[in-house]
Amino acid sequence: MTTPAHPTATPAPPSLGVAAIGYAFMGKAHSNAWRNVASFFDVPAFEQKVLVGRDATAVAEAATRYGWAESATDWREVIDRDDIHIIDICAPGWMHAEIAIAALEAGKHVLVEKPLANTLAEAELMTAAAAKARARGVQSMIGFNYRRVPALALARELIAEGRLGTVRHVRAAYLQDWLADDQSPMTWRLRKETAGSGALGDIASHAIDQVLYLLGDQVTEVTGRLHTFVPQRPGGNSAGEGLEDVTVDDAAWATLSLASGAIASVEVSRVATGQKNSLKLEIYGDKGTILFDLENLNELGFLDATAPVREQGFRRILVNEPEHPYLEAWWPQGHIIGWEHTFTHQVRDFLTAIRDQTPPSPSFEEGLNVQYILNAVEESAAAKSALIQLPGTSPETSPTEGA
Amino acid sequence: MTTPAHPTATPAPPSLGVAAIGYAFMGKAHSNAWRNVASFFDVPAFEQKVLVGRDATAVAEAATRYGWAESATDWREVIDRDDIHIIDICAPGWMHAEIAIAALEAGKHVLVEKPLANTLAEAELMTAAAAKARARGVQSMIGFNYRRVPALALARELIAEGRLGTVRHVRAAYLQDWLADDQSPMTWRLRKETAGSGALGDIASHAIDQVLYLLGDQVTEVTGRLHTFVPQRPGGNSAGEGLEDVTVDDAAWATLSLASGAIASVEVSRVATGQKNSLKLEIYGDKGTILFDLENLNELGFLDATAPVREQGFRRILVNEPEHPYLEAWWPQGHIIGWEHTFTHQVRDFLTAIRDQTPPSPSFEEGLNVQYILNAVEESAAAKSALIQLPGTSPETSPTEGA
Amino acid sequence: MTTPAHPTATPAPPSLGVAAIGYAFMGKAHSNAWRNVASFFDVPAFEQKVLVGRDATAVAEAATRYGWAESATDWREVIDRDDIHIIDICAPGWMHAEIAIAALEAGKHVLVEKPLANTLAEAELMTAAAAKARARGVQSMIGFNYRRVPALALARELIAEGRLGTVRHVRAAYLQDWLADDQSPMTWRLRKETAGSGALGDIASHAIDQVLYLLGDQVTEVTGRLHTFVPQRPGGNSAGEGLEDVTVDDAAWATLSLASGAIASVEVSRVATGQKNSLKLEIYGDKGTILFDLENLNELGFLDATAPVREQGFRRILVNEPEHPYLEAWWPQGHIIGWEHTFTHQVRDFLTAIRDQTPPSPSFEEGLNVQYILNAVEESAAAKSALIQLPGTSPETSPTEGA
Amino acid sequence: MTTPAHPTATPAPPSLGVAAIGYAFMGKAHSNAWRNVASFFDVPAFEQKVLVGRDATAVAEAATRYGWAESATDWREVIDRDDIHIIDICAPGWMHAEIAIAALEAGKHVLVEKPLANTLAEAELMTAAAAKARARGVQSMIGFNYRRVPALALARELIAEGRLGTVRHVRAAYLQDWLADDQSPMTWRLRKETAGSGALGDIASHAIDQVLYLLGDQVTEVTGRLHTFVPQRPGGNSAGEGLEDVTVDDAAWATLSLASGAIASVEVSRVATGQKNSLKLEIYGDKGTILFDLENLNELGFLDATAPVREQGFRRILVNEPEHPYLEAWWPQGHIIGWEHTFTHQVRDFLTAIRDQTPPSPSFEEGLNVQYILNAVEESAAAKSALIQLPGTSPETSPTEGA
Repeated sequence: MTTPAHPTATPAPPSLGVAAIGYAFMGKAHSNAWRNVASFFDVPAFEQKVLVGRDATAVAEAATRYGWAESATDWREVIDRDDIHIIDICAPGWMHAEIAIAALEAGKHVLVEKPLANTLAEAELMTAAAAKARARGVQSMIGFNYRRVPALALARELIAEGRLGTVRHVRAAYLQDWLADDQSPMTWRLRKETAGSGALGDIASHAIDQVLYLLGDQVTEVTGRLHTFVPQRPGGNSAGEGLEDVTVDDAAWATLSLASGAIASVEVSRVATGQKNSLKLEIYGDKGTILFDLENLNELGFLDATAPVREQGFRRILVNEPEHPYLEAWWPQGHIIGWEHTFTHQVRDFLTAIRDQTPPSPSFEEGLNVQYILNAVEESAAAKSALIQLPGTSPETSPTEGA
Repeated sequence: MTTPAHPTATPAPPSLGVAAIGYAFMGKAHSNAWRNVASFFDVPAFEQKVLVGRDATAVAEAATRYGWAESATDWREVIDRDDIHIIDICAPGWMHAEIAIAALEAGKHVLVEKPLANTLAEAELMTAAAAKARARGVQSMIGFNYRRVPALALARELIAEGRLGTVRHVRAAYLQDWLADDQSPMTWRLRKETAGSGALGDIASHAIDQVLYLLGDQVTEVTGRLHTFVPQRPGGNSAGEGLEDVTVDDAAWATLSLASGAIASVEVSRVATGQKNSLKLEIYGDKGTILFDLENLNELGFLDATAPVREQGFRRILVNEPEHPYLEAWWPQGHIIGWEHTFTHQVRDFLTAIRDQTPPSPSFEEGLNVQYILNAVEESAAAKSALIQLPGTSPETSPTEGA
Repeated sequence: MTTPAHPTATPAPPSLGVAAIGYAFMGKAHSNAWRNVASFFDVPAFEQKVLVGRDATAVAEAATRYGWAESATDWREVIDRDDIHIIDICAPGWMHAEIAIAALEAGKHVLVEKPLANTLAEAELMTAAAAKARARGVQSMIGFNYRRVPALALARELIAEGRLGTVRHVRAAYLQDWLADDQSPMTWRLRKETAGSGALGDIASHAIDQVLYLLGDQVTEVTGRLHTFVPQRPGGNSAGEGLEDVTVDDAAWATLSLASGAIASVEVSRVATGQKNSLKLEIYGDKGTILFDLENLNELGFLDATAPVREQGFRRILVNEPEHPYLEAWWPQGHIIGWEHTFTHQVRDFLTAIRDQTPPSPSFEEGLNVQYILNAVEESAAAKSALIQLPGTSPETSPTEGA
Repeated sequence: MTTPAHPTATPAPPSLGVAAIGYAFMGKAHSNAWRNVASFFDVPAFEQKVLVGRDATAVAEAATRYGWAESATDWREVIDRDDIHIIDICAPGWMHAEIAIAALEAGKHVLVEKPLANTLAEAELMTAAAAKARARGVQSMIGFNYRRVPALALARELIAEGRLGTVRHVRAAYLQDWLADDQSPMTWRLRKETAGSGALGDIASHAIDQVLYLLGDQVTEVTGRLHTFVPQRPGGNSAGEGLEDVTVDDAAWATLSLASGAIASVEVSRVATGQKNSLKLEIYGDKGTILFDLENLNELGFLDATAPVREQGFRRILVNEPEHPYLEAWWPQGHIIGWEHTFTHQVRDFLTAIRDQTPPSPSFEEGLNVQYILNAVEESAAAKSALIQLPGTSPETSPTEGA
């Protein structure tokens, strides 16, 4: 008997072997999640087997530091190992497609950081591979980790329960300031060929995913606008001298028509001085409103417009009660959790889905969908911001649109 | 000797006679300003002479209530009176042009509520009349009262002093919810023929004026989008039955390119549940940031990015010190003032300009300029949101725009 | 026919004649209330007749500025006038007793600023005079104006309706910083002989009145502590040179046992750097909690602990709806009002009480009661902070008190 | 060769063996710190060797879950092991003294949860043992973990640098609500014999430690007041029926005189409905003010009163920059950390102190000092709240105290 080319996932191994690829910012965050998830949640048995990176010394040191049993430099070899069942891809976006497709074909469950890929073509290939693998019981998921902020999970529950009534409009913004200083040097993140896009792909993707996640809705049309406020930055040439052109946006604006009739505005910036990591969401329905800011991620703002007017007001729910999503596992009420546990919850949900043989969400399809939207925003921006219809959707029709 | 057709303003009358036209919401607010301004500020002597309205009984009662010596029903007669030197127009927008032009031609100083007029054509006529009158020493001003919020006046000072450095982008929103209830009945404000436009003209005008005022900048290009979330409302027919089409927007989105290279987003809504009167402004420069919310109008948020990183943060300035604009006249520190005093300050500045024979700001030209911008937003909305260049401006050129 | 010594109040004069005594900070604030109250509220007809002060020139100028028909320098003469029906006392505390008693005996309705008097003895005489006058239909009231903050009036309603359940403890603080600078010069407010007391009498009086007002409760026992952080200040002698001893407290602490079993802490300071006029109230019941800060006086914090835990949170009620106390008279929702309208509401309630022949609250008895409590706090402070029982009360008994 | 009775600490073992005693709330939190500290900080090598508890099955399960190599039920045997160098005591307060003294005498470094002990006598014995052990190079520390909140560490830096000038008064409160429901059942925490005290020992201890830590000051005198708002609770008897007396306080109030002349108020409650874990600190100096709330532990409020008045305001410093204490180890700016990392930082500082042979702070002496203060608060409460002088201090003398 020969091993099939594309094996199914090993059914219920005694312990799932995990390998992570990448040990920079995201690798550190994902490792932290793997190292801690079993201390708080009931998850299937797993082992932090291998951390993979290109620099043997550095990855070995990182493996020790972050709790991995071994390190390796060749991700292909790791994918081939029988004792590895899960591949967690934290490598740069241009590597995602190759690794993910190979891993899925090898029957490994795959968790991949967002964005799915740097190009639509790659993202489509990955999604096709994921669909095929899923049919064989091999799971895959994209790392829109903010779906696992307890406050946002609670927001989704409240919206799904109808507490906002009909959602009319959404204001989504993701504001950072790490590029506010125009003397901050050139990096690969600021070149289109390595980064794909700028603020749009990096942070608007999160904002747009949240709109879809919270509302359970689809985008039909978009307008977009991109801008680069700092068009050149120092240190471009090999000697770190001179100025190099920045070829991605550092701010972007979009409006999104949703299938339900709602409209969302999205605004992102990496030059919003004083805003550090502020994903702001405001969701206005006819019966209530939700507010959120990632810099205070343990809090959710909620206004219930069905209460008597005299006592209506935005309430600050400290999302730290056992009754709240994910919170039963943590500390007593009022003992807030940190940003990193969005990843802990993500790994928990991924492991649970593998155990239950339930395809986890957000799927690669969902990641691809966000990329179609981002792509349409870029198309609109290139066409003087004119409204672009998403492929496969009907245009929204409103009697007063453009009145 | 005959009275000239277009007399100059009476030079320094012993006491300026004031007439106000309109006694609804704005008439009440303006009357309050006239009644109180001299108790707090050193202004030229004036008298609250006449309040004008169409319903003789109601206007007589309002005149008594709001501190006017007399009432009248014919604004033309009032304009003709020699003892009237100032006309304060609080009547609906469609009446502005006729009254203002007549008053200016009669040599009366004119304060007119925003919007300048319901149509561009009228606004242009008014502006021409104001220019001619100004040459004869007759002053005129449009009532963008939020320029007189002390916190915003302070914001303008800080920006003018360079405390924000180069302003890159602005986030402006004006959110209300008085139309959130879809059973709220039809009114003249929701018909295009009487109201001109909806949220755009009513509240986006304030937001856009603030962008221009705070930055001292000009708009060169816009994108726009309009929407009516509640397309029909009850009570449309004469019997108050049935449903009538709403023919104005209840929400609008725009982006504005500014001559300086900055970009502003503007978002307004009358269905933003829980937001009562929230004009929110965020101004991001490379050296600092300003935040403001009209619901807390005594506060200004300010971040100074030139401070050591360790101690940077958004500070809440309680704009209630004698050192702050307009505040020396009021109460001791920390004793906050209300929304209505934006009008008190407006009247103070108007009276001072008349005394000093200095044309007050915002002029009718500034009001007209805002209307050109609103008009361009509507044009863009009608053209699938595509970028529209403002008349008389050069397109912004950015190497990465639409990249 | 002779004038009776203690006439009854003139029954329903066509228009009540009002005289105010004092034109400094409080005179300005009270005048503002008289000038504006009839523009917003339906009150009995009245006229701003006379403003009284010692400096003829200054008071004449103030009368013109603040809307009074005349000015005068002799309050006794004014009290004797038949066309004066109301005396509003804004003079310094040491003058209250003499004026108020004379006015009441002359059959004039009296509104007096807090504190009722500088000494307990005077306050007791005033209260006795008020009781006698009340029997003749002559009304009197003490100016604890913060009872007329709409948010606090709403708080009282919510508490009275049982929305907090059983109130257990209250945290009250009144923090200012106008004496934080130790080079700020000596004034009469810092000398015991002229001011009576310092932060305790000036601002703890407001905090304590609020506890009593909001809870409808009585104090039975207190502990107190006083301190003067800046014991000497410059400019004491006649030449404004040298240092003079400050003989009143600039900060005070107290705990109050209430008849209901609740306990309140009170902390006040004039050296709380950065706090401008921050009367903070936190009221904790077993079913809910109220929060308030005078620097944001249009807002009330409310937590309803009977809601499902999942959605509990402090809500910020913007107390600006027609449904809220006093607000129907003002502006549309979200258009906030200022500090000064606590006095406008006070005058409205005072005039209404006169019209309805209903004794207004807070009465002189209530003012005297606050002074007994302040006095007990001073006694406790002088006795090493030991618990002092209020006259005429029973000690609270708790099995674990002092456990 | 015999083992010396009181061996010195093993100098620089290749890897420090750690044992933790207790696996409830604090054991979980401490374990989390040990499991993660080396992933973020450069600390001496150590191993999570043994978790100790009384229930063999439960502690074995907890050991696996929390990352310990083994479990054990007899802490004495664990202390005797040569491969154990550090004992981390998370057991209930009444067990602290016996374990800590035995461990120190055995030459083990000891980290003990607060309070140091349930009685002063035990705390004094522990402190004596720690002093003796320290002379032999054996380190000890008490777990006032909030000293390791980055925002509070930053606050201490700012105060030490003189940014607040002379600190005058402090408002400290620790408010929780987990006992607000009077039907919440009886537990060992509510009986004096097992818990020692109530809110006073449990949370006022943290508040008082912060006052001492932030100001670097000493308490000389206190007043105190204790109260039990819910004097009986259900479930007292063996069948969980009936009502049992609560014998500890559920709220406490104190004022503290400090050697510097500053005064602090302290208020704590477990029935402050809606406050979940709110340690609030306000520190008022003549040059600035600090604000903090543990429910938003990544933020520090700071007002710099030396800035021009026009731009003064409380700023919200998001304490998440590499420039901030402990933060360089964590995530990029704006990615907030959770409550649990106060323990991670605590373990980092403890391990670093062991490596550097520098006695860590807070020492047992510091823990004992807090207990003397708590004891004085209880004494004052038993003496009608009268001022109590701390042993070994001079009374503060102020000319106006008790004026």
